[in-house]
Amino acid sequence: MRAAIRLARRGIGTTHPNPRVGALVLRDGEVVGRGFHARAGEPHAEARALEEAGGRARGGTLVSTLEPCAHQGRTPPCVDAILGSGIRRVVLGMRDPNPLVDGRGVGALRAAGVEVIEGVLNASCRDLNLPYLKFLATGLPWVTLKSMVSLDGRVASESGDSRGMGGAAEVKLCHRLRAGQDAVLVGIGTVLADDPELTVRLVRGRNPLRIVLDSHLRVPPGSRLVQSAARVPLLVATVSEDRCLTDALVRRGVRVWRFERDATGRVPLRPLFKRLAEEGELSILVEGGPTVHTALLREGLADRVAIGLAPLILGGTKAPTWTRDLGRARLDEALEVDSLVMRRVGRDLWIEGSLRTPGGRGV
Amino acid sequence: MRAAIRLARRGIGTTHPNPRVGALVLRDGEVVGRGFHARAGEPHAEARALEEAGGRARGGTLVSTLEPCAHQGRTPPCVDAILGSGIRRVVLGMRDPNPLVDGRGVGALRAAGVEVIEGVLNASCRDLNLPYLKFLATGLPWVTLKSMVSLDGRVASESGDSRGMGGAAEVKLCHRLRAGQDAVLVGIGTVLADDPELTVRLVRGRNPLRIVLDSHLRVPPGSRLVQSAARVPLLVATVSEDRCLTDALVRRGVRVWRFERDATGRVPLRPLFKRLAEEGELSILVEGGPTVHTALLREGLADRVAIGLAPLILGGTKAPTWTRDLGRARLDEALEVDSLVMRRVGRDLWIEGSLRTPGGRGV
Repeated sequence: MRAAIRLARRGIGTTHPNPRVGALVLRDGEVVGRGFHARAGEPHAEARALEEAGGRARGGTLVSTLEPCAHQGRTPPCVDAILGSGIRRVVLGMRDPNPLVDGRGVGALRAAGVEVIEGVLNASCRDLNLPYLKFLATGLPWVTLKSMVSLDGRVASESGDSRGMGGAAEVKLCHRLRAGQDAVLVGIGTVLADDPELTVRLVRGRNPLRIVLDSHLRVPPGSRLVQSAARVPLLVATVSEDRCLTDALVRRGVRVWRFERDATGRVPLRPLFKRLAEEGELSILVEGGPTVHTALLREGLADRVAIGLAPLILGGTKAPTWTRDLGRARLDEALEVDSLVMRRVGRDLWIEGSLRTPGGRGV
Repeated sequence: MRAAIRLARRGIGTTHPNPRVGALVLRDGEVVGRGFHARAGEPHAEARALEEAGGRARGGTLVSTLEPCAHQGRTPPCVDAILGSGIRRVVLGMRDPNPLVDGRGVGALRAAGVEVIEGVLNASCRDLNLPYLKFLATGLPWVTLKSMVSLDGRVASESGDSRGMGGAAEVKLCHRLRAGQDAVLVGIGTVLADDPELTVRLVRGRNPLRIVLDSHLRVPPGSRLVQSAARVPLLVATVSEDRCLTDALVRRGVRVWRFERDATGRVPLRPLFKRLAEEGELSILVEGGPTVHTALLREGLADRVAIGLAPLILGGTKAPTWTRDLGRARLDEALEVDSLVMRRVGRDLWIEGSLRTPGGRGV
């Protein structure tokens, strides 16, 4: 199963909105077929592994990180391929909670006399697909908040400088993080302050969809985001009804989604995120700033935090931290983060953890 | 030399104001004597190692982390003991910059025909004695700023809670840190908010001198610090001339040092720190709060930072960070921290690093 998980990881950044799956065919203790799901519309991991195994699959064992599908999607049902191959035993990491599958794959295999062993390395198989699982459970995407802060917790200096806070290795790691996500999101404040491009330039990988929260359509036509919109998709979420501004963006290849303003007059986040998830954007990296991070934390839409820590002490009574008011005045009301991990990244440190949701993990 | 350094470390927390020193006697590739300096007034490392070696030192090699003394102090000069022992070769980590030694030990050995090899593992031998070296170079103590912060950089919640920010393992590590320091210092704000005792209770070790910056003698007679003053030394630094308040503290066993007020009307830090160093308090752990940390950073009196990071997100526009205004508005004016190290401490993380001083390390 560990080998299957490693195979599945090769799909990170490309399989969306499909889950990441890895599969192996074993015969007489030997691996005779390997497969992973690379891209929606392309063969599933099980089909690939069986194809590689060919006739050697007969009487063998199929190991897969996820329950095989029993329905006709963009590709034929994997269960049919398994039954056709003469596989005698199937070992699974987890059931697929997709209502089109959810036990039907396992049921069909058992009904045909195939031995099925379930739940092997279940937690690791779940970790492969947190965005997919969260979407199936809640209809919302998996959201990671990313910040770069100084040792004294500032995301920018008092004069507003934040570019250059992260060292070269940290910036590269951030690009790697982007490449593994379906979309990356910033607030208009970050666009106006930093003029970021939000593409994957320093590592190999796919550019995520770029999203700007821009209630009043202030995104400058000359900004790097808009300038590169013909090459890398850019979506602007707004409450503005200004036809002129909207048309100017659309002409440059920008997608503009208009929403009814929320109580604060801004883009309502939950409807935006629901719509993104429905369109297959299941994992979203939020690269600040404080206004956006705070809004997501307040609405319970964030799942994970990733913090780069620069070896700098900035001070400044007006230098911003990455959160504002969360409506939690007491220490015992603080949001808790589970299973912190950390590592050195060049001259910086990198810390990650998942937000604890009431009643355990959200998915 | 590595073994000698390990021996020297056994003196951490007890040798002050003397340096930490470890020594070995080797004869025919075998260790025949070991010593470390344990306490001021007790034998030096070299004398101990030679005593253990006895007659087997003749013709052998002495390895010591620090140049042996050539003067009569509270104990006889080590050079005499070395010459008397018949040692043929001496291997040293570093010279002792103490003006009473500083090359005289090496000179006396060479003059007597002993071979001397210098500078072996020099950097590690220096690291043993950063407080001692800083004092000899500047007359000031080695100062470590310690803070416990949330993942979003807060040292307390908006309502002022900070107790319980660190988990059990982190609190224990803080006590271990205290036990290795000559003194621990807080501002009166921390005393009034948290009523700390500042003793070493959770690990074995010596209690450091406790110091409170208390310009107006507001420290409550009923506070844990004052209540325990008869048992563990407590020093209050003030600019108050109030005889009545002073006498009340002195009667309870508190030492009170009065200073002329500085430009802000508070205890002047540099004169306080100079006096502390002169009295042998060479290493000081500053356990906040933000006012004290900021003042020390502004005056360039801090050498190292130690930050505990709790897996909590607090928010709050009025929740304090561990620094205030450092007079550095731009990112390129930030104070830089060298060679960050980090580790997990129970549910928390622990990060340490030394402040980079203009022109390299201060000592």
